[in-house]
Amino acid sequence: MPVDLAPPNPAQLFPIPGLRIGVVEAGIRKVGRKDLSVFLLDAGASVGAVFTSNRFCAAPVQICQSHLAAGAAIRALLINTGNANAGTGADGMARARSTCDALAQRLGVDAAQVLPFSTGVIMEPLPADRIIAGLDAAIAAAKEDNWLAAAQGIMTTDTLPKAFGTQVQVQGKTINITGISKGAGMIRPNMATMLGYIATDACVAPALLQPLAKALADASFNRITVDGDTSTNDSLVLVATNKAGHAPISALDSVEGHALYQGLLKVALQLAQAIVRDGEGATKFITVQVDGGATTEECSRVAYAIAHSPLVKTAFFASDPNLGRILAAVGYAGIADLDTDGIELYLDDVHVATRGGRNPAYQEADGQRVMKQSEILVRVGLGRGQASHTVWTCDLSHEYVSINADYRS
Amino acid sequence: MPVDLAPPNPAQLFPIPGLRIGVVEAGIRKVGRKDLSVFLLDAGASVGAVFTSNRFCAAPVQICQSHLAAGAAIRALLINTGNANAGTGADGMARARSTCDALAQRLGVDAAQVLPFSTGVIMEPLPADRIIAGLDAAIAAAKEDNWLAAAQGIMTTDTLPKAFGTQVQVQGKTINITGISKGAGMIRPNMATMLGYIATDACVAPALLQPLAKALADASFNRITVDGDTSTNDSLVLVATNKAGHAPISALDSVEGHALYQGLLKVALQLAQAIVRDGEGATKFITVQVDGGATTEECSRVAYAIAHSPLVKTAFFASDPNLGRILAAVGYAGIADLDTDGIELYLDDVHVATRGGRNPAYQEADGQRVMKQSEILVRVGLGRGQASHTVWTCDLSHEYVSINADYRS
Repeated sequence: MPVDLAPPNPAQLFPIPGLRIGVVEAGIRKVGRKDLSVFLLDAGASVGAVFTSNRFCAAPVQICQSHLAAGAAIRALLINTGNANAGTGADGMARARSTCDALAQRLGVDAAQVLPFSTGVIMEPLPADRIIAGLDAAIAAAKEDNWLAAAQGIMTTDTLPKAFGTQVQVQGKTINITGISKGAGMIRPNMATMLGYIATDACVAPALLQPLAKALADASFNRITVDGDTSTNDSLVLVATNKAGHAPISALDSVEGHALYQGLLKVALQLAQAIVRDGEGATKFITVQVDGGATTEECSRVAYAIAHSPLVKTAFFASDPNLGRILAAVGYAGIADLDTDGIELYLDDVHVATRGGRNPAYQEADGQRVMKQSEILVRVGLGRGQASHTVWTCDLSHEYVSINADYRS
Repeated sequence: MPVDLAPPNPAQLFPIPGLRIGVVEAGIRKVGRKDLSVFLLDAGASVGAVFTSNRFCAAPVQICQSHLAAGAAIRALLINTGNANAGTGADGMARARSTCDALAQRLGVDAAQVLPFSTGVIMEPLPADRIIAGLDAAIAAAKEDNWLAAAQGIMTTDTLPKAFGTQVQVQGKTINITGISKGAGMIRPNMATMLGYIATDACVAPALLQPLAKALADASFNRITVDGDTSTNDSLVLVATNKAGHAPISALDSVEGHALYQGLLKVALQLAQAIVRDGEGATKFITVQVDGGATTEECSRVAYAIAHSPLVKTAFFASDPNLGRILAAVGYAGIADLDTDGIELYLDDVHVATRGGRNPAYQEADGQRVMKQSEILVRVGLGRGQASHTVWTCDLSHEYVSINADYRS
């Protein structure tokens, strides 16, 4: 059961003029499920994208990077679930290329104008034939108002589709922003078995798309973790169709740029946090905020040490305020000159530890009360400086083990 | 159920002349269990020790370090289970010191000649009064032939006591080596909720004890991981009572030094691996060997990425050859210039992946066969150089979650 996550609200999934989406059942791994999506971009759209830092990045990720580097205008995204096409070597590259070729041919564009994405099981041959066989139907099904189907069409172990939208005003025009994402395991920053697609009809200088995608990822998708495993296939794509009819935004620090960024960030945060809320086996949504660091980097290190600790995560699952485990994680986070006497620990409003030891005023009943909540804020003060960082994670439950022990069965 | 781990064989637990051990029930956390041990060292013994790298190291660890630095001959070890006395601030230091003072007074030695050790729940006040109340009985119970009781007296979530011994010949004399350890969660190198004590009656130059302890830890206890959590209390202590009647060993590269080291290493490896075999919820014992690295450090990084991956560990639990997860872990281990086309992966004798992709000759049935074993060797070739490194770990099961969700209940 996801934590405080509702199914998408169709009324908020704003169609993006200039972007049509087709979703079909191609039988890639299982029959009777939507597993193939095409995003068709009108001429004039711009794209930015951020990909996994895993050296074993999947064939489609390598091809995306090469196609984006080639610089031709991107006209289509081709997404399959059920098979990650990772750890598949030269054969996997050839199969991914064949799907791009087939879609490009049908659209009358160059293969380098297609970006491929795959998610699912690693190290299995991609059934490129089934993908290609599904392309005509996917193209025929393409329409602007199809975000919910796309959110369903990229799911793997997700229990709910993830889709959010918002609108912002730029120069008197209403700009639409809609996005989808999928998790739900192998989630940690930089990035995860995470696919995210956010589109807007805003008019944005093409050169701004890439830094925008990076900034959005760093503020959202790169701050979530379920299990600390960095996937081979993570991709976040930002599309601007440039159809909204206002003067192009060329700087983020302008009034228009700020409005656009805030709208995009709102959607990106909802999508990223939805992945954690629907993390494999998650029963709790946990925000880990580390303040008082000398650098953002060390705050991030402490936050992830806490968020990745199996002992901390199982304690949250059990609603057991065994909070010394959090202090232990702070201690092994790798800050060599950490003075533990400066550490403060709060659970929501409860002051658990002070100066590195148990707060004399702390009552276990107070910790227990917070631990029983479905959403919890862990706040650590390092007492070293002014930097801070926040990440989001979930607990570790029996269900996580079940899901990952049985995933291929 | 521990993996291929038998209860200690009393015939192999050789008494160490010059070292007496007393173990009693002090009611530290639960009634009716042995939870307090004293090791009494005759005058003339030498000690080396290695401690946790966690900055939140427990009060007893800090006191051990300070007592060892003071340089007075160590005459007693004082060990309790049930309470880790970690994250307890100045009060925890005072309580630990009071127990050292009380034991020193009873033995007629200085408090700096006592080393205290605690394991158990973090961030709870140490019941020093109960420890002190148990000291007279512990001293009265002390005898040379008491290793099994000591192994029982340091257990926390361990399901079996861990004790091994061996004998080696030095200059025609039989030298005894016996050791005990405890796990079983919060286990990762440098070091873990791990207590280890190894003693020998060999005659060893005092200056050699510290480098010996470090070398032993690096070759054994610092190569195991259960859950990646580095504890606040890890300690490995090496005692030489110098009673064996041969000329003192002053160099490890001598014939005698080599014989002694091999004997100590044998016991240390058995103790360390026993912790993994009895890891919380473990159903499989997994050796991760990484060859062909440019440096030992990068091999270690890859080995731990595999050994810590929840996805890899749950796949082992399920006996599911979902081996792409191992490649993914190799890919995110942090080798920035890793050429994945050079990666080879073996599961025991089964060649799973070659040149970064699935081995065409690999049959899933072969992977399945190995995955069903209780002991598995994962071997990764990096194709970058001559360095290698090996670590030992276990799988991640429902039982791990249960144990850590319920630990304090």
